[in-house]
Amino acid sequence: MKVVIIFILISSSLFAQNPDSIFIQSIYKLALSRGKAYEDLRSLCKDIGPRLSGSSEAAMSVQWGKKRLELNGFENVVLQEVKVPHWERGTKESGWINSSKGLQKINILALGGSIGTNGLLEAEVVEFKSLVELQKADKTKVKGKIVFINQPMDEQFVNTFKAYGGCYSIRGEGAIEAGKLGAVGVIIRSVALPIDNHPHTGYMHYLDSVPKIPSAAISTSDSEELSKLLKVEKVRFSMELDCRVFPDEQSYNVIAEIKGSEKPNEIITVGGHLDSWDVGEGAHDDGAGIVHSMEALRILKELNYKPKHTLRVVFFMNEENGNKGGIAYAKWSKEKGENHIAAIESDRGGFTPRGFDCDGSFEQIEMLKTMGKKLNEYDLFHFEKGFAGVDIGPLKKSFEKVMLIGFAPDSQRYFDFHHAETDVFESVNKRELELGCAAISSLLYLIDQKM
Amino acid sequence: MKVVIIFILISSSLFAQNPDSIFIQSIYKLALSRGKAYEDLRSLCKDIGPRLSGSSEAAMSVQWGKKRLELNGFENVVLQEVKVPHWERGTKESGWINSSKGLQKINILALGGSIGTNGLLEAEVVEFKSLVELQKADKTKVKGKIVFINQPMDEQFVNTFKAYGGCYSIRGEGAIEAGKLGAVGVIIRSVALPIDNHPHTGYMHYLDSVPKIPSAAISTSDSEELSKLLKVEKVRFSMELDCRVFPDEQSYNVIAEIKGSEKPNEIITVGGHLDSWDVGEGAHDDGAGIVHSMEALRILKELNYKPKHTLRVVFFMNEENGNKGGIAYAKWSKEKGENHIAAIESDRGGFTPRGFDCDGSFEQIEMLKTMGKKLNEYDLFHFEKGFAGVDIGPLKKSFEKVMLIGFAPDSQRYFDFHHAETDVFESVNKRELELGCAAISSLLYLIDQKM
Repeated sequence: MKVVIIFILISSSLFAQNPDSIFIQSIYKLALSRGKAYEDLRSLCKDIGPRLSGSSEAAMSVQWGKKRLELNGFENVVLQEVKVPHWERGTKESGWINSSKGLQKINILALGGSIGTNGLLEAEVVEFKSLVELQKADKTKVKGKIVFINQPMDEQFVNTFKAYGGCYSIRGEGAIEAGKLGAVGVIIRSVALPIDNHPHTGYMHYLDSVPKIPSAAISTSDSEELSKLLKVEKVRFSMELDCRVFPDEQSYNVIAEIKGSEKPNEIITVGGHLDSWDVGEGAHDDGAGIVHSMEALRILKELNYKPKHTLRVVFFMNEENGNKGGIAYAKWSKEKGENHIAAIESDRGGFTPRGFDCDGSFEQIEMLKTMGKKLNEYDLFHFEKGFAGVDIGPLKKSFEKVMLIGFAPDSQRYFDFHHAETDVFESVNKRELELGCAAISSLLYLIDQKM
Repeated sequence: MKVVIIFILISSSLFAQNPDSIFIQSIYKLALSRGKAYEDLRSLCKDIGPRLSGSSEAAMSVQWGKKRLELNGFENVVLQEVKVPHWERGTKESGWINSSKGLQKINILALGGSIGTNGLLEAEVVEFKSLVELQKADKTKVKGKIVFINQPMDEQFVNTFKAYGGCYSIRGEGAIEAGKLGAVGVIIRSVALPIDNHPHTGYMHYLDSVPKIPSAAISTSDSEELSKLLKVEKVRFSMELDCRVFPDEQSYNVIAEIKGSEKPNEIITVGGHLDSWDVGEGAHDDGAGIVHSMEALRILKELNYKPKHTLRVVFFMNEENGNKGGIAYAKWSKEKGENHIAAIESDRGGFTPRGFDCDGSFEQIEMLKTMGKKLNEYDLFHFEKGFAGVDIGPLKKSFEKVMLIGFAPDSQRYFDFHHAETDVFESVNKRELELGCAAISSLLYLIDQKM
């Protein structure tokens, strides 16, 4: 591709120059030419690293967040207390496939919340193609064995979150269903799209009424291999997990705002979550959401925008394994007598923006679609009813009429990195990240103007 | 991000189930679940590698293409003769910044078509911020020096091709303008967006009336560094380039088709270019376009689609430095007495599709927009008047009414890789590539049905 795109150049001069359009253009120009999000993300990923709730890194990330918000000159920077779970992976984490081909050591990641194996755990493997198949299984087939749930994400969905929705429960519920049937452990196929050697972790939970068994993820590639072996022979699996639960820790949401000039008690929140899983650097999940949110407000501030409503940025703690931060924030705001009119969450990665989803009334979705038209020229066309986010979800209980909005970037690469050691700063593209900041900042502006 | 997207799941069931929509859905499902494009691209990148016109690798890529098209069972697989230029980089390629800080060796890439330096070339550096500034310069300021054109791509454009259009001429025309003023060599800032250490090459040319001088690209990072030094002191630059031009070589376009059942003499062509620059692997530029085109036809064939018009895939030779393949193809088709009604080119990388540009009449652009509505549910919204492509461009001269269409994927990452050693297979995402195949295959189907 070597020749100038003459027609594109011509068509670029046709922007409608009304005040909204002029202001949004200035947001985009600032984000793309003097943006700070990429350097902020580098710092969060490299100066802090992965930051699972309850870890020292999570505590450091709270300090990091407070300092960054103060340096940006926002008002009312506060730490809001949140009690969070504290689970640690430990140092021993090994898995072996034991077949007629001999022992094969493979990558394995305990699922967050799992108990350890208390030494080496070894048993025959029994495979299920889905959680439903496991639920229907006969106890005699499962008892004393390690259950292997090999349910792939359905690659035929264009939106990868649909595929995620269709199978992420093997991670959360696998140990319960296998435990009910007397299994001694469970390994799941990583909830991921590419066939590679990286296991993906994530939250799992137990029921008090069901025996607790260790639970881990293996890579998609090893899942394919293990499944092939199981077609022709009995296979045993060995694993050692040293993970354990510690007492809850004191942690914090980190909050700052630009006070509204006309309706300061009406709040528009934008946020992502500060905690991450303990592998990789939490770059897309959800470092991107943190810097999106901070930068969206910083841009408005740098452009000297004086909002009518109070614009608030929240770095939520503990989205990944408890949502304690989201719950605490909604409660706190309600108790303060505030009125939340809207909230935007970014928690689907730092990819090229496609638009926003709205968890709200018919009228709110229509309002979003109308605002969305002003963003078409920035290649944003997706403005639909949809899920908004985990952290802002509890606001709905406190504020019946709040408009909840989820930032929707392109979803194709998210499940390459999600909860895996590959989710590092280098997996985020600078321009894609900056366009996300511009999109969110523009929508904040439009909501503040139109509501 | 851990919770199922319930609303998205609900909204997924609202597809309008007319015949077009059902068929397009089957195209997407096939592309995403049983696609061959990614493995084809791996083979082109790894079994062949970079394939500059006239090189042995370009000759091997012709064999590769012919074999792949035959294995896919297409009709009338032919090689069409094209005489192409043959320029080689040679083995010596070195550059040094010589300042008060001492000698600093930097990465350098001769521009395609440049003469060599015939040993070490050393001179004082004079910087210009744009080609226009150089054109206006006084001869005494330039004579005997190495001209450094440090014009960055404008990062404020959302569509990166606009930024490219605004400055790629420093590469093509830099040596002519500098040569006119008596410079002894020219180095340009790589036409690229990220600030990194990879130089980006590309086509340059000379005029017989102007002294020919060696021409090379340095990285964006080194350009920033050199510019900083030049603000405070005189700096010399040394370089050795061993590149040279050889006699033209015989090469080929590679062509295959699915014959039309109703109007076999009316042709719809889809293509990309088989040649690439000689660094990296030509993965995005334009291996992606090659496998997009082949896969788009293969999908229709596997779905047993019988086209009305003849659908033809063309692997063009020599897009990068001459467009000899594009010119030869248009001439050949005209001479055969065919009628070309439409052509689609993919030459903007293997990224997530956004839509298509149309270089055609008002009616043709309206027709494309109408077809485009059927692709909205696959997140394709960009259907505009625009540049279509270099290879299919000459068809316009042969067939006045041909509708020329350029595939438009997301442009954010293209100029990270374009003409650089980083343009390798690993920089292409499997799903993004497959979605491109599906988008192009769907548009081929719609054009065949509606025209």
